[in-house]
Amino acid sequence: MEKERQLARIDDTSAYLIAPSPHASRLTRGVQGTDQDGKTVALNVVEERPLTIYLNAQEIVTAMTIGDYPEYLALGFLRNQGMLKAGDDITGVDYDEEIETVVVRTKTHTTFEEKLKKKTRTSGCAVGTVFGDMMEGLEGITLPATSVRTSDLYKLAATINRTPSLYLEAGAIHGTVLCQQDRPLVYMEDVGRHNAVDKIAGWMLSEKVPADDKVLYTTGRLTSEMVIKTSMMGIPVLASRSGFTAWGVEIAQQVGLTLIGRMKGQRFVCLSGEDRLIRDADPSKIADDPRKSGRKGAAQ
Amino acid sequence: MEKERQLARIDDTSAYLIAPSPHASRLTRGVQGTDQDGKTVALNVVEERPLTIYLNAQEIVTAMTIGDYPEYLALGFLRNQGMLKAGDDITGVDYDEEIETVVVRTKTHTTFEEKLKKKTRTSGCAVGTVFGDMMEGLEGITLPATSVRTSDLYKLAATINRTPSLYLEAGAIHGTVLCQQDRPLVYMEDVGRHNAVDKIAGWMLSEKVPADDKVLYTTGRLTSEMVIKTSMMGIPVLASRSGFTAWGVEIAQQVGLTLIGRMKGQRFVCLSGEDRLIRDADPSKIADDPRKSGRKGAAQ
Repeated sequence: MEKERQLARIDDTSAYLIAPSPHASRLTRGVQGTDQDGKTVALNVVEERPLTIYLNAQEIVTAMTIGDYPEYLALGFLRNQGMLKAGDDITGVDYDEEIETVVVRTKTHTTFEEKLKKKTRTSGCAVGTVFGDMMEGLEGITLPATSVRTSDLYKLAATINRTPSLYLEAGAIHGTVLCQQDRPLVYMEDVGRHNAVDKIAGWMLSEKVPADDKVLYTTGRLTSEMVIKTSMMGIPVLASRSGFTAWGVEIAQQVGLTLIGRMKGQRFVCLSGEDRLIRDADPSKIADDPRKSGRKGAAQ
Repeated sequence: MEKERQLARIDDTSAYLIAPSPHASRLTRGVQGTDQDGKTVALNVVEERPLTIYLNAQEIVTAMTIGDYPEYLALGFLRNQGMLKAGDDITGVDYDEEIETVVVRTKTHTTFEEKLKKKTRTSGCAVGTVFGDMMEGLEGITLPATSVRTSDLYKLAATINRTPSLYLEAGAIHGTVLCQQDRPLVYMEDVGRHNAVDKIAGWMLSEKVPADDKVLYTTGRLTSEMVIKTSMMGIPVLASRSGFTAWGVEIAQQVGLTLIGRMKGQRFVCLSGEDRLIRDADPSKIADDPRKSGRKGAAQ
């Protein structure tokens, strides 16, 4: 419904290693309703499916997801929870579409049974995942001092906001993009904000992609969970169109993550890790038109 | 940062039974950073705190919350999970700020230990809470056929979007408002979208407020979880500025909930429960200026 307000979309997404699939039939569903005038309207809405993740014989979590890349989601979730360690020998990742499960198998069994005892079920959009381990996992993390050019950040935001996506097609979905310098590499979307991040983590784990030269861009809020996951992934820079929570900022400062929020048009706010920023762009030369990008900021 | 784009705020919130507290010191924190020009900026960001909820001796969940109305959050969460039944005799709700816990005590112990065994930990913004019970709880729910006037829905949206709130003050937060006809009664905000709904459920439970003549307005997406919670609360109408997920629509149609989304200015889409709508407003007479309200739609 915002289409008339959006900037022209880019046609060629071949620069992406993984681009969104806005027209994949399994990810959206056509529904019918009425508009304000009582006229029948047909629209596409995003799917939302349960996916139950097992680590070996142990059921770990049921995630609500759009349903693409279930193997990456499972791997990334377990890794970001600290339930899979960097050294763990993964012997298999088996997805069963019919019963909506993914089983991640490791050679040596992990300590997860023990861990599960300590776990608390968590609630709240800001923390949909299990919390105990997440804080644990942060101990001893030091993020690389890789610098980031503001010119690259502006280019990334412009490219990402013009990339055809489920968000632009159907709305009601979050996007997270793994980037390197001015190039978006992997653009994941999901109904769960942190699922999109976990899918990227799973891809990085599978492809053995280094994190120290990457930037993570998300459409979502910079909550404690987003900051923790980004840190667990070893990515030194997290940027978003959206706003901050106090704890997200606090954790970013503790681990030395560069945290950039409210990035719209020429504007942004950096609340942590300023030292990494190379301010090589003249903001006044960047079109300051936050409302025309088709992306919303704020409470996402 | 959107202030210049917002409509004039209402000054008098005395019509609310509970209005937002945008200036409550405990709910936001002042932080310092730099803007795009390297200038030091000071801004307020919302707090995000863990709150662990107990039902009698059993630890149930740790929610990430802004921290206001912990008793309502605990009561509402347990009720919306089906862990507290309508008939349960609640003998106490004890909040301990220091250790960030709420204990809800019932006269006769509930079947929650059993339930917990069946539970799966859930992940994803769309479902931060425990899922098994939620679907269970829906069995046998029939929502009242109370009609709703589109003129009231337009008035509600206009009032709510002009009401001083943490969202307008600090952003990065969700709002949910319990309404009756054209009057917003209780406006809850939280970093977790469904925490705001649970706080309203807790208030309704404490105050023994009937649900059949109410409308729930949320800033968030109309996901399966939002639809399930609204149905559990017995509220027949759920409206949002934001979009839909396919499963949210499907469940709304199953339980006969009136589901209205993408409500911006004069526009809205009704994807379920059309029969309740009394179209007594002329949409062409409603200012169609979605971008000036200060509220965002889409993936919230």
